Amino acid sequence: MIGYGCIGLENSRLTIPTPALILDLDACEANIQCMSTRAQENGMHLRPHCKSHKSIKIAQLQVEAGALGISCATLGEAEVMAQGQIPGILITSPVVSPGKIARLITIHERSPDIMVVVDNPSNIEDLARANISSTPLRVLIDLDIGQNRTGAPSIEEALALAGLILQKPTLQLVGLQAYGGHFQHIASYEERLSAVRMQNERIKELRDELQKTIASPLIVTGGGTGTSDIDLKEGVYTELQVGSYLFMDVEYSEVALQPNGESPFKPSLFVLSTVVSSHPNKTIVDAGLKAFATDGPKPRVFLGASPDALYAYRGDEHGQVHGDSLPIGSIIEFLTPHCDPTVNLYNYYHCVRGGTLVDIWPIEARGQH
Amino acid sequence: MIGYGCIGLENSRLTIPTPALILDLDACEANIQCMSTRAQENGMHLRPHCKSHKSIKIAQLQVEAGALGISCATLGEAEVMAQGQIPGILITSPVVSPGKIARLITIHERSPDIMVVVDNPSNIEDLARANISSTPLRVLIDLDIGQNRTGAPSIEEALALAGLILQKPTLQLVGLQAYGGHFQHIASYEERLSAVRMQNERIKELRDELQKTIASPLIVTGGGTGTSDIDLKEGVYTELQVGSYLFMDVEYSEVALQPNGESPFKPSLFVLSTVVSSHPNKTIVDAGLKAFATDGPKPRVFLGASPDALYAYRGDEHGQVHGDSLPIGSIIEFLTPHCDPTVNLYNYYHCVRGGTLVDIWPIEARGQH
Repeated sequence: MIGYGCIGLENSRLTIPTPALILDLDACEANIQCMSTRAQENGMHLRPHCKSHKSIKIAQLQVEAGALGISCATLGEAEVMAQGQIPGILITSPVVSPGKIARLITIHERSPDIMVVVDNPSNIEDLARANISSTPLRVLIDLDIGQNRTGAPSIEEALALAGLILQKPTLQLVGLQAYGGHFQHIASYEERLSAVRMQNERIKELRDELQKTIASPLIVTGGGTGTSDIDLKEGVYTELQVGSYLFMDVEYSEVALQPNGESPFKPSLFVLSTVVSSHPNKTIVDAGLKAFATDGPKPRVFLGASPDALYAYRGDEHGQVHGDSLPIGSIIEFLTPHCDPTVNLYNYYHCVRGGTLVDIWPIEARGQH
Repeated sequence: MIGYGCIGLENSRLTIPTPALILDLDACEANIQCMSTRAQENGMHLRPHCKSHKSIKIAQLQVEAGALGISCATLGEAEVMAQGQIPGILITSPVVSPGKIARLITIHERSPDIMVVVDNPSNIEDLARANISSTPLRVLIDLDIGQNRTGAPSIEEALALAGLILQKPTLQLVGLQAYGGHFQHIASYEERLSAVRMQNERIKELRDELQKTIASPLIVTGGGTGTSDIDLKEGVYTELQVGSYLFMDVEYSEVALQPNGESPFKPSLFVLSTVVSSHPNKTIVDAGLKAFATDGPKPRVFLGASPDALYAYRGDEHGQVHGDSLPIGSIIEFLTPHCDPTVNLYNYYHCVRGGTLVDIWPIEARGQH
């Protein structure tokens, strides 16, 4: 790997070349175990979302902890996970272009249990025509529950899609997806609960109608870290697509994940930076627009400077830490602002336990659309 | 390359797997030639900035068109450019940690003309001690001209740094850097000119003092696409670190690059997307937070939908195009919002001439810090 210069340095968290993405394995493993236990206690399955971590190794840990498989936002992620022999792949967005459908069918030949969502009749026709194997391609109806992204806008349209799928011998209807991304960051537990319950009525209506048409137990997939406590208790889904619980970023630190406001999960993902310029009232680190996702809140100081020291972007490769004056070479560690697109900026997780660098994991699906 | 699925498809711009970064070679080559001609006409050199394109191939084109070399924001970029045999590398940010200084010295062994900026006495001591070769390491004093990022805050401090460098036989003082990133996007030409001229007085003062201390002609480096017309005419710099002129993003479309408001450069960088979900009043494309830099303006429709159709982010992998209702499979091409961090999200440029895919260039320095 060009430019990777850790070799020869001590295995200390503080001498990793910066900016670097740090994964605290103790915290991450505890999060995986905690979500797994909560799911088991509630009779729920997990198919965690690969879009958060994009790593075969982390997918393996999730499957070892009991997950049914892995959810993928993109075909590229699904290809990586299939090559990593991860079972139970679900692609959570429609796959529509001829080139991508051909690639999907290639994965299906090796991983016949792969599943994909659909929300459009012509896409159903295209998938049915493309699959020439004797194993039907497993599909789920995508229902829009107010996120205003993909998904059939109404129960009637969802049922019309189901009717079309049932006419296709090369396709197998296995369930429905109802993903409420817009619920996940509602800060108040009560407001989130009320929003979820309103849409759960629609999900149950579609579920009950679809269940009449197929013999096998219907998959009902959706949910995220923000609604996980609610989804586990409400029991409308059969499985959850949780992702961010692994990492717990700044965005999720503002969300009451349980009624008592406490989080069952701990921050495990950080960006390590070095002070590269220091003058009175000006501390500049080597982590900027290319080190952090900029769609959400600002990075938050976690170690190495005052937790109240505010961060400001200073271009592609720099940021300013206000309120502290630290000498060059000082290390400052930040909680990641929005975990998914931050992970997507890095080639590796630098895995630590306490102050020790213990492993380096590639982020194989980074940039794979 | 996992997930790269272009093979076997026609060589059409419209069948490239999406989301994809599209480089219009005709426009990009015209931009390179135009900047080169303007520099020659004004007796100015170019050392274009690699942080924008992160590509050996594009650096080669710039050098072939007359550039002295290439500017790099990070050590990782410099390593990639050195491996690509690009001459005249300048690292525009201080290199401070022991591990990174060791890597810098390794590049210096192969590329003895490499240069790096300094803004701190202890960094000068560290660099001087680290270079044990017989070829001095070329350094430039970094002067802060109001960007509030790296650089000595005053002429006096800059001269003190110069005095220290002159005492070090393993270092060679070759010039000064004065980069005004904060000037580049001032929309009004007149306001930008006035801001630049105010700081130019300080640059000239430092330049004239430094020139007294060294025999060879002093390098004065800085500038960007936004101030290039001004910098070429004012003649304070000896060379410019222009980068975005290659691509011309949405941000730069708001900036009057010349007094008459016309741009000498054309947009050459686009993101190609596919409509993956379509319902009444809801057109969803497969390009979201991981396909565009989110620190600046929104992506702007360029081809495939109405130029007035507004884009909105809908998560990691999706965006909504308002005001148009297009069937699934439709292709929509966007002007990139902020080019540098957008390029940093992709592994490849898909190079086109007109409607034809003619080449694929790796973005070797993507994610290289």
